[in-house]
Amino acid sequence: MSTSPDQVNRHAERARSARDDLDAVLDAGAVGTLSTVVDGRPWVVPMLYARDGDRLVLHGSTGAGALRHVAAGAPAALSVVHLDGVVVAQTTFESSANYRSAVVHGELVPLAGEDKAAALDLLSDAVIPGRTAEVRPMIGKELAATLAMALPITEGRWTVKIRTGPPAPMDDDATDVERAAWTGVVPLSLTAGTPIPSDWCPPDAPLPDSITRLIARHPHP
Amino acid sequence: MSTSPDQVNRHAERARSARDDLDAVLDAGAVGTLSTVVDGRPWVVPMLYARDGDRLVLHGSTGAGALRHVAAGAPAALSVVHLDGVVVAQTTFESSANYRSAVVHGELVPLAGEDKAAALDLLSDAVIPGRTAEVRPMIGKELAATLAMALPITEGRWTVKIRTGPPAPMDDDATDVERAAWTGVVPLSLTAGTPIPSDWCPPDAPLPDSITRLIARHPHP
Repeated sequence: MSTSPDQVNRHAERARSARDDLDAVLDAGAVGTLSTVVDGRPWVVPMLYARDGDRLVLHGSTGAGALRHVAAGAPAALSVVHLDGVVVAQTTFESSANYRSAVVHGELVPLAGEDKAAALDLLSDAVIPGRTAEVRPMIGKELAATLAMALPITEGRWTVKIRTGPPAPMDDDATDVERAAWTGVVPLSLTAGTPIPSDWCPPDAPLPDSITRLIARHPHP
Repeated sequence: MSTSPDQVNRHAERARSARDDLDAVLDAGAVGTLSTVVDGRPWVVPMLYARDGDRLVLHGSTGAGALRHVAAGAPAALSVVHLDGVVVAQTTFESSANYRSAVVHGELVPLAGEDKAAALDLLSDAVIPGRTAEVRPMIGKELAATLAMALPITEGRWTVKIRTGPPAPMDDDATDVERAAWTGVVPLSLTAGTPIPSDWCPPDAPLPDSITRLIARHPHP
């Protein structure tokens, strides 16, 4: 993922801020990598997440979940990356990837009470848009079995990087073989397939709005 | 990504080892998250990677690349996750994600000489299958501008987790509303779109075999 500086963080050229970019990159995904430090070593686990304004919401099981390893207050980072394409140049050296990535650093904060319940609903709706309106609310024992934490989005403690567009232009001293090569971009995107009902799903159960919205979010590139 | 134990690491049920699963999960991707520790805090960056037998190969720019922050010998972890689907249950609590994830822990080893050149070719061919056979080899100044490191895959220092299949079965005490809900899986996969030639790509340049293979690797779900 080598990128020339002029292709990364070109926020000055656009009518949007880096923070807008950060939010867009975070909101485009559902899975990130949570990193912290345990005994001086990196400790890492993939997690579902959702952005709730100026914080990220994470959850896990109190029983076997990964979050129990991460103490509240531990220095942590949530990393998100979307691979948007393979950038094919006339040489391997100039070839690259189009991507959007974000890293949010901070300390984890445990959530409780109403805040916890609301955060978990927000997370559900982030992954399956509007699902909480279609199913019953979480009940006490489910809430008790679920850990929820927040990672604040604090100015100066996050980064966002975006690479878009074609390969770097051909050098003037490129050889004829290099000039004759196919160069360009192969776009990639996370695409939804046909929903697969579970065996016990009633045959007449209509596809709910939440699933239609989820699929619409992941169109064929 | 809560998952019941019987849906994770079911290697005993399959005619393959956990190490086979690890390799398959790693080989299915191109972008991972490299984590290490700097001043007691997590330090994280997304990176292209490739598996080379019992090691992972990483690269970056000597100038601005992320790897220069990571000293050889630093404790590191490379995390890879593929989101394979959204698992929709009759409650938000039972809803989940299908995924394949791998984390490889170890210490980074710098690569040099022939080993470095071969590792960089392997990385190129992992991202764009067979591309090195279509373009000129890397030249001295390109090799000099590129850092390459390896992360050994050492027994006992990696994990692989896989969740597949439908939601957990409906509880016997499920309400009528729960039983009437649509439940199932929305499959997701990284899908290739139509290749976009660069403006300076010769109009008669045939789509090379490497691009055809890259696209074939990312079919519509």
